[in-house]
Amino acid sequence: MSTLATPAGLRDVVVTSTEVGDVRGQEGFYHYRQYSAIDLARSRSFEDVWFLFIEGRLPDAGESAAFAAEVARLRVLPAELRPLLSGIALAGREFRPLAGLRTALSLVTEARGLAPTWDTERATRQADALMIAAVTPTVLAALHRLRAGLEPLEPHPELGTAANWLYLVTGRIPGPAATRALEQYLIAAVDHGFNASTFTARVVTSTGADVGAAIVAALGALSGPLHGGAPDRALASLDEIGSPDRIEPWVRARVAAGDRIMGFGHAVYRTEDPRSLLLREVALGLVAQGLGGELVEFATAVEREVVRVLHELKPERQLYANVEFYAGVVMELCGLPRSMFTPTFAVSRVVGWSANVLEQAEERRIIRPAARYVGPPPPQPVPPPSG
Amino acid sequence: MSTLATPAGLRDVVVTSTEVGDVRGQEGFYHYRQYSAIDLARSRSFEDVWFLFIEGRLPDAGESAAFAAEVARLRVLPAELRPLLSGIALAGREFRPLAGLRTALSLVTEARGLAPTWDTERATRQADALMIAAVTPTVLAALHRLRAGLEPLEPHPELGTAANWLYLVTGRIPGPAATRALEQYLIAAVDHGFNASTFTARVVTSTGADVGAAIVAALGALSGPLHGGAPDRALASLDEIGSPDRIEPWVRARVAAGDRIMGFGHAVYRTEDPRSLLLREVALGLVAQGLGGELVEFATAVEREVVRVLHELKPERQLYANVEFYAGVVMELCGLPRSMFTPTFAVSRVVGWSANVLEQAEERRIIRPAARYVGPPPPQPVPPPSG
Repeated sequence: MSTLATPAGLRDVVVTSTEVGDVRGQEGFYHYRQYSAIDLARSRSFEDVWFLFIEGRLPDAGESAAFAAEVARLRVLPAELRPLLSGIALAGREFRPLAGLRTALSLVTEARGLAPTWDTERATRQADALMIAAVTPTVLAALHRLRAGLEPLEPHPELGTAANWLYLVTGRIPGPAATRALEQYLIAAVDHGFNASTFTARVVTSTGADVGAAIVAALGALSGPLHGGAPDRALASLDEIGSPDRIEPWVRARVAAGDRIMGFGHAVYRTEDPRSLLLREVALGLVAQGLGGELVEFATAVEREVVRVLHELKPERQLYANVEFYAGVVMELCGLPRSMFTPTFAVSRVVGWSANVLEQAEERRIIRPAARYVGPPPPQPVPPPSG
Repeated sequence: MSTLATPAGLRDVVVTSTEVGDVRGQEGFYHYRQYSAIDLARSRSFEDVWFLFIEGRLPDAGESAAFAAEVARLRVLPAELRPLLSGIALAGREFRPLAGLRTALSLVTEARGLAPTWDTERATRQADALMIAAVTPTVLAALHRLRAGLEPLEPHPELGTAANWLYLVTGRIPGPAATRALEQYLIAAVDHGFNASTFTARVVTSTGADVGAAIVAALGALSGPLHGGAPDRALASLDEIGSPDRIEPWVRARVAAGDRIMGFGHAVYRTEDPRSLLLREVALGLVAQGLGGELVEFATAVEREVVRVLHELKPERQLYANVEFYAGVVMELCGLPRSMFTPTFAVSRVVGWSANVLEQAEERRIIRPAARYVGPPPPQPVPPPSG
């Protein structure tokens, strides 16, 4: 077999072309389709951005209302899941909401008999992708409440994705400030280039498998420590530091110990992370509306001080706050429990995965690279079993 | 971002080096570690080959017995699954055993709290991989029996993997001829180069995720029509043909209609498929022991005639019987119901996946290629929501 020498881990090797979006790390810019993701977060609803991902264009007013109504209909907890969800929620000693979601979505896929993308029309695949993404927050919130000994709530028919998520998790209808803050986070987190979970979803789709199989696989990749961030870790650092006078000694001690500082640094951005800039602005906006003044003041002080000290100690690196840092602050101010921070990310990212699945399904070609065998040369004689 | 031009679907692009095995399509040869897979199928037990995949060498007599005892212990249906398995088995209108297995393994992974491969020692990862592969046949057989309205059976402590699989599915302790025939199939199907499900398992592992997440993702890839074969389809063709005099007109009609002939042709082999050669021999061996004379005689006649007519109609292609063709015959003669043919493949392949997961986990480097954005250039101004 002829083979090409390639960089470790396929870094920068182009697998496919895409119209979903991209990241420009040098410029500190990322986009969804032809729009800046940050511009979209500032001015549109989560449902409009979802429509953009699926349809490739923003909806007009009529389409926007129709699409919001459609996902509201799809949001209901699948009946097939109801008898099993409590068992899934309580299965582990520790609560792992994303593993529970994976199990539940695998079951929904099986129960609904989703057809292989290879054998379906675009409309069928799209309906499956909308259903999977729409039930994701409902399932996650139900797992959370069951684990806490509470009954799951039914989605509120008059709330959009962001407000519904807050309502389903906390049991309280959120105010407009928290709703809009969370919605901006959700929009900013839908997609981010060709990351490992997106690639996984596309590899599984390339075999012609159904949408559910691809999303279930992507959830597995997302659970890897080398892939995703965890907004709760950055917040845990704030707790650990405790007060403004302890910021500088804390940073110096962490760097001296060779520890990574959670919430700072990114593999792609050589500038400030555009998501972090947006979410700092969102957090400050919440303060202006009377929410969380003390936490935000402390977080901005920590950011300033960490960046200053890291610049002094590691002048060769560009280390800035990443999306985790202010995402944790915003979610905390919106009233989400920390165990639901990473699940909140999944509520958003599942929309990005599904757009990538739909695009990949059109290619109708398997992604199947090669490996180079480097073990002892075969065939060696097989010794008899008694050996 | 600098990018390299690469072939469609990464074909022949080397992602990684491996010591697990390889396929030499031109030679009609494939191997596990340093041994011919066919030689292993002729002379060793499934458990010995499993040991080879995990440890990189064949066991001595003492290790062989100890390993067989270890997997026998691990084979028990996980207690955490018992209350939910019936719901999983009955979830869909149609029975999809592999989707049920995916849901069940996702749940076991969650319930047992498997740790990320990134954070574990090799011994922990290996124990997790053994457990997942050992419970796979038990779970599949339990799903099958629950779907049929029967109680699942407990694994038989004195039977190996092959005999246990037949026992758990059919409820009867199999004779030595059927046991050994199925064992040879299981050995021949463990691994086959860097196929799409194996690649998927390795991508998920490369994020540092746990063994269960990787195997669950691989099951998704296996469900894609472009990936796997389905031994029951080849057998369905035999039924459709019905009698020896109808073979030739049937083949000519299928070729004239542009249909693929199930069980013939392979993407990699330019020779006879070595697995097909082995399994024909295994089938003929069953006949010599008084099992299935009529079916095997008919199957060999169909093979001969299909190859002859395909050679006449498509002289430029090398079309031979592939692994599906005689695998279906062997499984039928062993008494497995057709719905459990592809699950039988999974019972074997999960061992190959787990060896690949363990090898990938040692690399500690993410597999993350790139995509080229080809949509309209951003940033376009975002129209206001009323637009």
